[in-house]
This record gives sequence, C-alpha cells and structure tokens, in this order.
Amino acid sequence: MTEQNFNAAYAMQEIGGGVTAAKGFVAAGIHAGIKNNPAKRDLALLASEVPAVCGGVFTQNKFAAAPVNWCRKVNAQGKARAIVVNSGNANACTGQTGDEHAAQMAQAVGGALNIPTNEVLVCSTGVIGVEMPIKTVLDGVSAIAGKLSYEGGKDAAEAIMTTDTCLKQCAVTYEYQGKLITVGGMAKGSGMIHPNMATMLCFITTDLAIEQSALQKAVAEAAGATFNMVTVDGDTSTNDTMLVLANGVAANEPVAANNEGYAAFVAALTFVAARLAKLMAYDGEGATKLLECVVSGAATLKDARLAAKAVVGSSLVKSAFYGEDANWGRIICAAGYSGAEFDTQAVNLRLESVAGGIDLMQNGAGLKFNEELAARILQEREIKILLSLGNGAYTATSWGCDLSHEYVNINADYRS
Amino acid sequence: MTEQNFNAAYAMQEIGGGVTAAKGFVAAGIHAGIKNNPAKRDLALLASEVPAVCGGVFTQNKFAAAPVNWCRKVNAQGKARAIVVNSGNANACTGQTGDEHAAQMAQAVGGALNIPTNEVLVCSTGVIGVEMPIKTVLDGVSAIAGKLSYEGGKDAAEAIMTTDTCLKQCAVTYEYQGKLITVGGMAKGSGMIHPNMATMLCFITTDLAIEQSALQKAVAEAAGATFNMVTVDGDTSTNDTMLVLANGVAANEPVAANNEGYAAFVAALTFVAARLAKLMAYDGEGATKLLECVVSGAATLKDARLAAKAVVGSSLVKSAFYGEDANWGRIICAAGYSGAEFDTQAVNLRLESVAGGIDLMQNGAGLKFNEELAARILQEREIKILLSLGNGAYTATSWGCDLSHEYVNINADYRS
Repeated sequence: MTEQNFNAAYAMQEIGGGVTAAKGFVAAGIHAGIKNNPAKRDLALLASEVPAVCGGVFTQNKFAAAPVNWCRKVNAQGKARAIVVNSGNANACTGQTGDEHAAQMAQAVGGALNIPTNEVLVCSTGVIGVEMPIKTVLDGVSAIAGKLSYEGGKDAAEAIMTTDTCLKQCAVTYEYQGKLITVGGMAKGSGMIHPNMATMLCFITTDLAIEQSALQKAVAEAAGATFNMVTVDGDTSTNDTMLVLANGVAANEPVAANNEGYAAFVAALTFVAARLAKLMAYDGEGATKLLECVVSGAATLKDARLAAKAVVGSSLVKSAFYGEDANWGRIICAAGYSGAEFDTQAVNLRLESVAGGIDLMQNGAGLKFNEELAARILQEREIKILLSLGNGAYTATSWGCDLSHEYVNINADYRS
Repeated sequence: MTEQNFNAAYAMQEIGGGVTAAKGFVAAGIHAGIKNNPAKRDLALLASEVPAVCGGVFTQNKFAAAPVNWCRKVNAQGKARAIVVNSGNANACTGQTGDEHAAQMAQAVGGALNIPTNEVLVCSTGVIGVEMPIKTVLDGVSAIAGKLSYEGGKDAAEAIMTTDTCLKQCAVTYEYQGKLITVGGMAKGSGMIHPNMATMLCFITTDLAIEQSALQKAVAEAAGATFNMVTVDGDTSTNDTMLVLANGVAANEPVAANNEGYAAFVAALTFVAARLAKLMAYDGEGATKLLECVVSGAATLKDARLAAKAVVGSSLVKSAFYGEDANWGRIICAAGYSGAEFDTQAVNLRLESVAGGIDLMQNGAGLKFNEELAARILQEREIKILLSLGNGAYTATSWGCDLSHEYVNINADYRS
C-alpha cells in the first residue's frame, strides 16, 4: 500500500507529540547526574498504565551491551510495562558488573512502579567500557518515578539524546474498526557515516490492541524499511535497540498478523519509524545535507535496498555532496558494487531538490547537463537521488547525510 | 609458510626496481597529453621480449570500464606480451565508443611492437564518463614504443599515478631449482576510506616459467591476502585491475599448481603485492597514519579477514586515530559487527607503534591503561592494531589509514 492509499483508507493524520501521544502512556525525563552538565537530562522513564505487549529488534553486534541482553530476555517473554533509558553511559563492555547494573535498574523501576522486574526494559547510550555510576542512576529512578505524566514525552525524548542536535519525535493517528488508533515515538541517534558507535535508540508506543507475535513481526518489518536503511548492514553499535509497546487501550479487536488491521498498523508504524530515521540522518554528525536515495526498478526488494544503502553509505558520494559537486560517477559506482543485480545499460539517474531536478544518466550513459542548474540544486539542504535500475518493480529508500569537516572534528576526539 | 621460513628456504631478497626487475621485460612512461600538466607522465607501456602467460583479477563492479572488459577477454586466453596504461581518463561509462577506444589502444600497441592485438592488455585510470582523447592516446603509443628499455620501470610507475603522492614499486629475488627468480611490480591507488573510485591498478612481472592455470590461481591467492585487505568487499572501482605476466626467461622447469615451486612463487608474489598494498594504504587520500590490523586466533581465515577489514574500514576507528585517541571501544565494536564468529569473553586488544605497545582489553574487558603512553604510541605515523579473538589458529592482516580533514578536502570537489 502506498502512503497515499493508506492515508485515504485509514484517514491517517500526523499529530504532535511522541511516546505519550497514545492513550495510557506516561513518561518523564530528568537530569539524574550521569552527564556532568546539570542542564542536560540524562534519564528517561516511559510506562504503560495497563499491561502491554512488546516487540523489539536489537543490535547484531557481538559486543551487545548489558542492557541489550536484558531487553532480549524481557522481549522474548513478550510483555513489558515500562522502559528506562539513560544517556551518558552505554553500559557496554562492562562484564558481569554491567549485567548486574542493568538488572538493578529494572528492579528499581519495578519497585517504584509496583510492576514485575521482568516487565521492565532497560536501555543505555553513551561512553563504552566505563562502569555505570549505578548509585546515581538508582537515585534517579526513585526521583523520576513520581514525575511520570501524559505530557512527559518531550522530556523523555530530550533525556535520551547524546550528540543529537535536534529532538526526534513523531506521532500519527488512524481509524480502525471505528476506533482512533495512535502510534507515537521518539528516537536518538546521529553519526550517519557508519553509525556503528552512534547508538540508535527508538521507542514507539501505541494504544492498538495487537497480538504479541503480530507486534514482533511488525517491528521487524518497520525496522527493515526504515532504521536499517540509514545504516549499512551489520554496522550496528553495541546498544542499538528499537522497542514498541502496545497496550490495547483503544479497545479494538486484537490485531493478528493475518487480519486486515495488520497492514494498517505496519503502515502507521513504518511512517513513524521512517520519520524518526530521516531525522536521524538529517542530524548526522557534522551533516550539512540530508540525502534521500530512492532506488526503483529493482528485480527484488533486496536489490533495491542494497543499491540504495550503498549510495548513501559511500564516503565518496557523501564527500561530493558536501562539496556540492554533481559527481554522478560516484553514485553509479556505488550502485555498481552494491551487489544488486541489474543491467548497466538500463540505468537512469536524476537529482532533485526544492530548487529543481536534473537528469544525469540515461540508459547507462552520462548526459550533458547544465552545471549551473546542478549547482543550484545541490546548494539545498535536502537532496533526492533517484536511481532507476530498469530491471523490475521493487523500490527502496535510504537516508544519509554528507561527510563534512565537522564529522572529522566530532569523531577525532570523541572521548575528550 | 611464514615470511621468515620462506626467506630461509628460498633466500628471498628485496631488491630495487619494479616491473623491469625481472629478466626480459622492458617499459617506458611518457607525457602523451592526456593530463594537462606537461610535467606529468600519463602513458605507460610494459612488454615482455618473449611470449608470456598472464593472470589477472578485476573489479566486481557492474560498471566495469571498457579496458577491464578488454582485459578479461585477453586474460581468458592466458597469453599476453604487453600492457598499455593511461592515466587521466578512466574510459568508464563511455558506452560502445569506449570499447572501441580500448580496442584501438591494443591495436596500436600490437602494430608498434609487432605482436598480436589479442596479446595486448589495456588499462585506464582517471575521470569517469568522459570520452578518451583517443588521437592523443594513439599518438602517444607511437611515441612510447620506441622508448621501451630495461630501465623504464620507474617512468612507467610514475605514468600510472593519479592522486598518488608516492611511487609504488617493489621487487624481490629468490632461488628455485638453482635459478634466480625475480618478481617485481608497480601499483597506483589511494583513497583508502572506501577505495570505490580511487582505482587500484597493479602490474607485476616475473621471469619464472609457470603454467598459466597456476599463475591465475596464484594471482587470485595473492590478491585475496593483500589488495582485498585494503578494501571492504565489493567496494571496487570501475577500473580496478591486477595483472601479472610470467615470461619463463629464468628457464626453470615450469611451475604447476601442484608442485613445490608453486608455494614459493605465491609467497614471493604475495610479498610484492603486500608491499604495494601497504604503500597504497600509506598513501591514502589525506592520510596522516598507516594502520595495520592483525587479527589472530580466528576460527577460519574468512573470520580473520572479516574482522581485520571491518576495523580498518570503520570511519569511526579512522577518525579516532586521526585524533590520536585510544578509543578502543570503536575497534572492538567494528570487530563485533564484522560478521566474524568469536566469543567476546576471549578477546584481547593491543596497540603498538615504534614508540611502544599497550594492552587495552583482555578477555573481553577493558583494561586501565596509561593515557600518556597511549598518546605517545598514537603520535607515530605507523600503528599496529593487534586483535586476538582467542577462537582458533587463523590470522589475517589488513591495511588502512586514518580519516582526516584533508580527505574531505580532496573528495569534496574532485571534479573541479
């Protein structure tokens, strides 16, 4: 279903807010003292007022952080009532002590909210290899529990930020079985060259009633089309996590993977996740431009995704856009080594921005183009790369940013 | 066989020179006018005085350049007498005209040297998508044919350079069946973040007598251990090529893949190729440091290579070394997402340079370390990253460079 079709069928609307937009969710965000700067929030808590099911996808990194291992266990049981998140310390490569700290965080939240410890999800983001200041964190949990509110989504979204320069929230409503369903979320993450250490965290809530197995399937589908398209396969940090809670407060008939409500929910979830993913790319470390690559005409979805990711993942493409240079050879070269199957003689390439559009390649051969118009298009902040492979019906979109001097500045001495 | 064992068994010695070090090879390099700057050579010719067999490996990029397609055909027949190389124009994405130009270059060389056209290999490197100035090139072939000499290796090595800042040559001799065998080569290439557009060309000659099938096998083995270890799989340019000519002038019994001479030749070929690969990494665009990552203790060679390549391929690792920051989390994170199989609890990590060595991780946990010593080690130009997976007996080495402001400068406006 295209976005337009979905909007028409389900009256989908974007609304303000984030994780507390859906009914029955409360949140808060405070400065607990994990970050040195007292003006920065560093602890977030999100809870459902009623029992909820959860779904999640996690980093594939062998060095998964302690909280990721904790979340995997909770998610395997499928039920969760709360998510606690700290920024400033990743609790990664911290050995058995790290596992104990993650468990202590869950216990503290469980005690404060009077819910089972094994229904508390725990996430951390920040420096690797440094022991958690656990007393500070546990004191923070005591303090934050009393601050949960329907208006706390924004504070929570602030508290999960690290090098992020902008808040990342999105929420939508749609109609299903005469009920108003809300899906809203928040995310943190930047560092879009290879986001291997710039942890991506995403938390989405919904008041939809949905079976846990269907929710888990929907989360995996949405992540594949969105967050995985701002990264290169496997390039995941020790802490990357996407979690979705569904509490059923909307009181619809529970959605299953095989009934009509499933596709509608996947569409809404993907919309929210895509917006958050795009905001992450837009907020890439040192980024001056948002690049969106749409690969069409691929023989398979896999081919479309491979090619789209290779283009926004190429440091040479990124550098060229930073320099506002219409170096189309780098774009098609990246598609050429991506592993996607296609006939080079059928490839078309076009760039677009708010300033206009320009065709650079047709049927595999470079076109003469107006350098002045190209320069004008490339001066814009958001640029679309439209690559048609002429080999089938599949399309995929990826997001990235340019590679700037500022990226090198940020990452050359991250620890200091 | 380790390098030391090989040296002892075959009395291998590094000697000066490059592609004309081996007996029976002549070369030249001139300014033909493809590059605007008259001080820069842009056409190289290399020839064997007697018939020779060839082996080669080529880019996997779908947009393989016209000369690559030409070379594939010649190499499939297994015999070649000459290699002509121009810099300044890649003859890539140039359609049928490009194919005709590559064929014309081979014909011109064949005519000038009185050898069959289908025994002439053709390589190009430079700007993509621009038609070859074919008259200039063909005039150049006429001019260069008379200049071939035993001393021409260095001029040829200069003529294949583009953004390279240093000449890349290496030659060794070893003894086999009482004969002195020479293996020598030249290469061009830089741009080591993702060398997708910074074409890698490598030409190696030997006077060894070897069966063509054994030569082709040896070339693939040597490339896998060397040039493929300065790149990320699949990240190949439109023009990447490695070619080896063997002319048998040393008059040994021809080496076959199943006789003892094979391992000795592979060792010598790999030594030369590794030196050239390392020089490419050292000469990375904007590089201030050479990074060598040795992964040991892997369960398979594939695992060792995956982990080693992921480490030197990570932009965050590269940025950290540019900033001389001992951010070991980024190194082990890259290994963690590389796809290599290992137990994180068995991982050790150590950095070394001429200034000393320092252990950063033992059995999967970070160690307290002396920041002053770490800083001293990281100030050096060449740094070794020693990562032990504790999971088996396989080892692999990869080479890369740091990511600097200068890289962004070079690549932001490459076309202008």
